Amino acid sequence: MNFSSDTAAPAHPAILEAMLAASKGPAPSYGADPWTAAAQKSLRDAFETDLDIWLVPSGTAANALALATLCPPHGAILCHDEAHIERDERGAPEFFTGGAKLSLLSGKHARIELPALKRKLDANRHDFVHETPVHVLSLSNLTECGAAYRPFEIAERAALAHAAGLAVHLDGARLANALVSTGASPAEMTWRAGVDVLCFGATKNGAVGCEAIILFGAARQRLMDLKVRVKRAGHMPPKMRFLGAQMGAYLKDGLWLDLARRANTSATRLADALTRAGAELAHPCDGNEVFVHLPEGIADKLAKAGATFYPWIDGSHRFVCSWATEPHEIDALAGHLG
Amino acid sequence: MNFSSDTAAPAHPAILEAMLAASKGPAPSYGADPWTAAAQKSLRDAFETDLDIWLVPSGTAANALALATLCPPHGAILCHDEAHIERDERGAPEFFTGGAKLSLLSGKHARIELPALKRKLDANRHDFVHETPVHVLSLSNLTECGAAYRPFEIAERAALAHAAGLAVHLDGARLANALVSTGASPAEMTWRAGVDVLCFGATKNGAVGCEAIILFGAARQRLMDLKVRVKRAGHMPPKMRFLGAQMGAYLKDGLWLDLARRANTSATRLADALTRAGAELAHPCDGNEVFVHLPEGIADKLAKAGATFYPWIDGSHRFVCSWATEPHEIDALAGHLG
Amino acid sequence: MNFSSDTAAPAHPAILEAMLAASKGPAPSYGADPWTAAAQKSLRDAFETDLDIWLVPSGTAANALALATLCPPHGAILCHDEAHIERDERGAPEFFTGGAKLSLLSGKHARIELPALKRKLDANRHDFVHETPVHVLSLSNLTECGAAYRPFEIAERAALAHAAGLAVHLDGARLANALVSTGASPAEMTWRAGVDVLCFGATKNGAVGCEAIILFGAARQRLMDLKVRVKRAGHMPPKMRFLGAQMGAYLKDGLWLDLARRANTSATRLADALTRAGAELAHPCDGNEVFVHLPEGIADKLAKAGATFYPWIDGSHRFVCSWATEPHEIDALAGHLG
Amino acid sequence: MNFSSDTAAPAHPAILEAMLAASKGPAPSYGADPWTAAAQKSLRDAFETDLDIWLVPSGTAANALALATLCPPHGAILCHDEAHIERDERGAPEFFTGGAKLSLLSGKHARIELPALKRKLDANRHDFVHETPVHVLSLSNLTECGAAYRPFEIAERAALAHAAGLAVHLDGARLANALVSTGASPAEMTWRAGVDVLCFGATKNGAVGCEAIILFGAARQRLMDLKVRVKRAGHMPPKMRFLGAQMGAYLKDGLWLDLARRANTSATRLADALTRAGAELAHPCDGNEVFVHLPEGIADKLAKAGATFYPWIDGSHRFVCSWATEPHEIDALAGHLG
Repeated sequence: MNFSSDTAAPAHPAILEAMLAASKGPAPSYGADPWTAAAQKSLRDAFETDLDIWLVPSGTAANALALATLCPPHGAILCHDEAHIERDERGAPEFFTGGAKLSLLSGKHARIELPALKRKLDANRHDFVHETPVHVLSLSNLTECGAAYRPFEIAERAALAHAAGLAVHLDGARLANALVSTGASPAEMTWRAGVDVLCFGATKNGAVGCEAIILFGAARQRLMDLKVRVKRAGHMPPKMRFLGAQMGAYLKDGLWLDLARRANTSATRLADALTRAGAELAHPCDGNEVFVHLPEGIADKLAKAGATFYPWIDGSHRFVCSWATEPHEIDALAGHLG
Repeated sequence: MNFSSDTAAPAHPAILEAMLAASKGPAPSYGADPWTAAAQKSLRDAFETDLDIWLVPSGTAANALALATLCPPHGAILCHDEAHIERDERGAPEFFTGGAKLSLLSGKHARIELPALKRKLDANRHDFVHETPVHVLSLSNLTECGAAYRPFEIAERAALAHAAGLAVHLDGARLANALVSTGASPAEMTWRAGVDVLCFGATKNGAVGCEAIILFGAARQRLMDLKVRVKRAGHMPPKMRFLGAQMGAYLKDGLWLDLARRANTSATRLADALTRAGAELAHPCDGNEVFVHLPEGIADKLAKAGATFYPWIDGSHRFVCSWATEPHEIDALAGHLG
Repeated sequence: MNFSSDTAAPAHPAILEAMLAASKGPAPSYGADPWTAAAQKSLRDAFETDLDIWLVPSGTAANALALATLCPPHGAILCHDEAHIERDERGAPEFFTGGAKLSLLSGKHARIELPALKRKLDANRHDFVHETPVHVLSLSNLTECGAAYRPFEIAERAALAHAAGLAVHLDGARLANALVSTGASPAEMTWRAGVDVLCFGATKNGAVGCEAIILFGAARQRLMDLKVRVKRAGHMPPKMRFLGAQMGAYLKDGLWLDLARRANTSATRLADALTRAGAELAHPCDGNEVFVHLPEGIADKLAKAGATFYPWIDGSHRFVCSWATEPHEIDALAGHLG
Repeated sequence: MNFSSDTAAPAHPAILEAMLAASKGPAPSYGADPWTAAAQKSLRDAFETDLDIWLVPSGTAANALALATLCPPHGAILCHDEAHIERDERGAPEFFTGGAKLSLLSGKHARIELPALKRKLDANRHDFVHETPVHVLSLSNLTECGAAYRPFEIAERAALAHAAGLAVHLDGARLANALVSTGASPAEMTWRAGVDVLCFGATKNGAVGCEAIILFGAARQRLMDLKVRVKRAGHMPPKMRFLGAQMGAYLKDGLWLDLARRANTSATRLADALTRAGAELAHPCDGNEVFVHLPEGIADKLAKAGATFYPWIDGSHRFVCSWATEPHEIDALAGHLG
């Protein structure tokens, strides 16, 4: 009954087997190996466009490197006040950018709302030396509260941002879960909707530790800048083949979407069990996370029974399912709700 | 005939198998897992002392994080002008420290010599606001030219540094190779000789991607500072168990020393073959690297035959053996020397 | 009719004359001169305690240097969301700290309210590596909306901050105006109320360009750190005597309080004139600034008549008086209000 | 007998009088005042070209800001190993650039020599991600040893730098002294010789505290970037008129060249007196500084007699004359040499 986080799950066997298979003979270091090239090709196929990439072992690294290629030290990044980059990365964006600001918007379900975004962008002045203008809009899909944006919602926000001269970053630590629940294609949800740089997560969905920073369209011109930052941050380990192999296996034959589907299905079942027992959904269950207001006494009871899950800042509790969540875990939890 | 670098080698099967074995069931994220705890215990045993650690996937990350915990933004790090931290890390120490300087010393075989070190430390003024004082002495063993310091040599340098109020960092990307060739124990070569923080490499000697930052003695008080920097730099991936598993397997039953012995033996055989063919050693062959001045025409001949190796800045050529170098590769190379 | 800002005013003659008087013969550079020593002594007298100082030409420099001595790169500074350090310094605190965050609280009249402060401090976790804890509470007096805190209000906030392990910074760009209107002594408003580091402004109140960073009590141990940061930021000009001379003259015979009294009196008269004409005070007029909601059409009328003043983000307009504001300017403005 | 530094001198009366004259009535803040505009016009006239400027109170600020506009955080600045930016600015270039490196060349009299410069530039690789390429060549004229480059020497070095894709920075803290001794015009020594950004000193030559960062030619496109950095570093004090007034007075009617001529003449007389007494010039006396190897016992004797001067790292002693050095001071010193 471990619902603490999808990061608590092990790696999927197919991904570890791909690492084993990649461990044969010498290979060029620092990303010039065939596995990394194959991963890039698989990403091109999945996203139906040409693109450039770098692979890193953590979402914090992916987000911070992506943002640093888009925002100067004296600029700001617009994001939701519950965003992972604001709340949970110990100032990594500030460190990697050399001291940029995060400028915060609030909004239900950790979603950025259009009117607030418009107001903020209208007040943005790139030529006023005293204030710090925003240079990047950072969205998350799934949001930190487990809600999904649909492609047209990403597109609306990105269009406003681009019109105001901003670049668009998407934190896709749980993008697979959002794609499965919305039925959108990878392309529709990202570059076709105006995303310039995507952090595409695999770790929470079955990898050992692998996230792709993906540059689309004009942002591809920043590849050399990105690689310099990557090197300087210690994120260019010599044996990159083992990151390439992970990403290749993750995408192969739709494994990534199968794993996300599995996790989402578990979450739906869990949400049903919880709401049947009197809990109320605090946020839409659009992926693999369930946020509920629990009836009095239930949290303690579940914890005593050995279930792991987290209290959330809004008074709700968060339960996360992963690709590895077993039906019997949900049944067991449900059994303690009675 | 791949002698380009020990980073071109694959990972040792025992290390990959340990990762597979660690991929069972849920585990706490961010380093609170049992594999990371076991790795720390194994390191304590190997180094015969209590210590604190963090595991990262690259030597650049290890060095830069270690140095940043020891040197303020307005201080300097004393190192050899051929050191990896100066030459090959794209300014990672400067980035992680927030703008500290590297202060350079020259010396044969990329070794720091005592008289130059003394002169530098004598001129160091911690209370003079206009100049940048050195706060850390960084040594490398093996050096960038493949030479080894023996424990008393580390101790002499560390004693001078400590007397001048500096901390001592050891870049041990190839420490195993230096231990094997000198016969020193891990403890003798590090904390007993005055090393405060060690970057202990495994990647070049058989790991997938794993280096331990090891804090000894009083430096252990900096653990929280180190962890904050680690998090902020994206070097706290959620599934740390896979780093812990690598380090555990690397140390188990002396695998690490066996692999280093294998690589050193290959290098000795290669050095013999090269010198018999008229090459001259440019630097002592104290580990798994051979630097030679080749007779005219030989470099081209070898390259045409398919051997890979690198020209060095001093006019010599570098050949690196790894744990995976096969005797037949050396024989094949030797066959082209005639 | 220039009510644009107190920074538009010239310097007071006594301050320029002191600079002239200091320009005699050779003097030690970098702050070791007698004028800087005398300024420090005058500040000790004015604040009735021992203290350490550094003098800089701008409030942005003073605030950023002070904050950087109190907050590590991986920490946060708690301030009001309208604070000058957040709104008007182009990320100087982020630059000087090496990437710290500003954590924002809202509250009427740009004042930090106790309940919001308590909630924020209760949630602060210094030992949780993923989040960025606050290390400093930054207050402004006058606030950005021209309101004054009284000493007990500073003390209440500082006590909460200290209890939570924070240091307390006071942005006193207009401290003289706050002292005059509240009747508090410099000591009561600062170190006796728990302020650790004060940025004590003179520029807006008659100096050429001079702000003192003042370290009180235990914060004095940070003097060397401050001086290193000062040097590294180019804020240690050789001829420091000219900054020392300014501060000495500013404090001599209570000039600073006389000038603030003059400015406050002008503001009171201006506020009377404006409110008599139907304007409503948007914020308390506790110093030399008047924020009013103007009756329709008045802003345009005044601007056409040649008056200078600024629209504020809350829909009000800001009128600032300085030591140099002349009664006839207020009368002239009043004449256009009818 | 104060020969400690030209920074120990007072300000020239004409410069202080200009500040007094500027202190009349309200003026726009932050550099939009007429005095700053006039200073820019005077600099255009003096340098015979259009240019953009910013005025700061210290040479360290000027150099660091200029370098930060030319060099990214992951680049390097090529300079002499005795350069002020390397030795005497506590890492200000590293701070302002966000962690760039200084890459050092040696050479007699603190001059960069052509062959060493060529070798360095030949090895520079902008597209190799592991190493830190140089982006800027920084020259000083006068050098730190008081020697002057002539215009063709600046031009030779700048041409090599430009051909290698570098920008050229000139630290002109004592440019006036170099112009007087070489007879070169400001234009010949700077932009016509290939200088992109000049730090033009006035403080050591009679100002209260004023240095101009001057952007020439294509570098003028970096003005907004420079201003943002200036603001963020606290170097945009509100009452900029007092910096503008200084620079205007400094340039008016050739005052700056008169003052430099006076200082150079004093240095020549001092050098004569010292060499007649058996001292040997350690470096060419091309400006207002005299570096001599003193006969045994003389340094102590002079110090006891009350003369102030500094020992230099090469075993010589440095004596600096300023615009305010009086003939009788030199006579007095000469009297103690006998």
